[in-house]
Amino acid sequence: MTNTLTTVRIRCVQLSPIIADPEHNIRQIELEIAGAAQDNVDLLVLPELATSGYSLTPEEAREAALPADSPLFLRWQEILGENMSVVVGFCEDGGDVVYNSAVALTPGAPPVVYRKLHLWDTEKLVFTPGREDPPVIDTPAGKLGVVICYDLEFPELPRSLALRGADLLAVPTNWPLLERPQGEHAPEVVQAMAAARVSGLAIACCDRSGEERGTRWTEGTTIIGPDGWATGEMDQSGRHDALVTLDPERRRISERNDLFEDRRPEFYGRLTRS
Amino acid sequence: MTNTLTTVRIRCVQLSPIIADPEHNIRQIELEIAGAAQDNVDLLVLPELATSGYSLTPEEAREAALPADSPLFLRWQEILGENMSVVVGFCEDGGDVVYNSAVALTPGAPPVVYRKLHLWDTEKLVFTPGREDPPVIDTPAGKLGVVICYDLEFPELPRSLALRGADLLAVPTNWPLLERPQGEHAPEVVQAMAAARVSGLAIACCDRSGEERGTRWTEGTTIIGPDGWATGEMDQSGRHDALVTLDPERRRISERNDLFEDRRPEFYGRLTRS
Repeated sequence: MTNTLTTVRIRCVQLSPIIADPEHNIRQIELEIAGAAQDNVDLLVLPELATSGYSLTPEEAREAALPADSPLFLRWQEILGENMSVVVGFCEDGGDVVYNSAVALTPGAPPVVYRKLHLWDTEKLVFTPGREDPPVIDTPAGKLGVVICYDLEFPELPRSLALRGADLLAVPTNWPLLERPQGEHAPEVVQAMAAARVSGLAIACCDRSGEERGTRWTEGTTIIGPDGWATGEMDQSGRHDALVTLDPERRRISERNDLFEDRRPEFYGRLTRS
Repeated sequence: MTNTLTTVRIRCVQLSPIIADPEHNIRQIELEIAGAAQDNVDLLVLPELATSGYSLTPEEAREAALPADSPLFLRWQEILGENMSVVVGFCEDGGDVVYNSAVALTPGAPPVVYRKLHLWDTEKLVFTPGREDPPVIDTPAGKLGVVICYDLEFPELPRSLALRGADLLAVPTNWPLLERPQGEHAPEVVQAMAAARVSGLAIACCDRSGEERGTRWTEGTTIIGPDGWATGEMDQSGRHDALVTLDPERRRISERNDLFEDRRPEFYGRLTRS
């Protein structure tokens, strides 16, 4: 990020992957990458497990898994254009194990793969949790962090990515529909709004749509500015576009306050393990 | 907390302290303590700087300051009854310095004073920041944490209090009114909702009312259950009552997930300083 205001066009596309049809899923992903490049999108985020669908048996997951060095990612890289970064959730073949992963593609750099750290419910029967820090990647749009779905429910994680320099956070998700009081955002959106505001971090959560093996999805795709408010609009095809402005001074929130400098880390107890 | 469901009656009273009239302020506080005891309230929370008002000059703050061992607190303790705990924000005389503090009173225990760690804007010209961890206090209603206003904007703090065992968090506040998109909660409420939900923590934020030296207040008093949703109702006198249920199993949020056990602290970077 430079020392002036940067305005970034972010798009999330609420795809509806089909479990039995990876070719369909991959075709959809490629169409969206090509379309977003044409529309001058700076950051495109697609759902968690967009290549495979979510409600997989362990066998189906192994079957659908792609290696971290899949030639597919290089093909996608070729259609990115020169300015756009893309984050796509995929089912990763890790040899003996399968990961719930996301690949981040950015022009002129090798693909970066992140493996979900916090697994939700039956994911624990299918996937192995990651063992590495989430990435913070230099992109033309700013420094980009990546986490996946339930990861965002641990406020330590978006916070630590912001402290490591992230301007933007891409969050591929599959949010099962939960009950909530009338007039409220989905609870995961409340979480994302809070995480954005306390760290001056733009957060793009890309949910999926449709119904899958009895699970209904929240269809809660939300792009949140570094001020903590949701922004942009979704069209009828599930493409949510938003312009987000990254002001290098955005963490200076009053004459005497800065969101990071005001921290008192010596009083935050045992949040980490060294 | 026992191993069964506990239902706790929480009250916040959105007082309007007057800067030039500490006697009035103290009379109001005592009336509310006595009234809440009569109404079988378990936890009463009153605003930040309820004894003095907020927009103080350094001289006014010194003038209004009460020592941590003020006989007032012992008098309040006498009218608590046998089951109620009370948290009140006050201007503390720390000898050479003045603190923005809160006193927590609970039956049969000495008063506990907490000094605000994170100071907002011109508070930095008046108060000295605290140098001790926020308390977690055993009360008949459960384990009670205390922070003050801007403290809550640092997600590390409610999280670390929950990890230290807090069931309930009392947050005396004075929230200056900020613009926000239509239909949204005050941003500080979004913060509190997120902090509550990720840790299964009930949070009672007691704001103040009225206008003071050109500052309008949000009047955003909110009591949030451990599920992250606002609850209860405010009457016309600014008394907000809510019943909150503390289930010892509330952090077990699916067959295979627990909000605390699922943490991966080795990946949360440098959130703390040892």
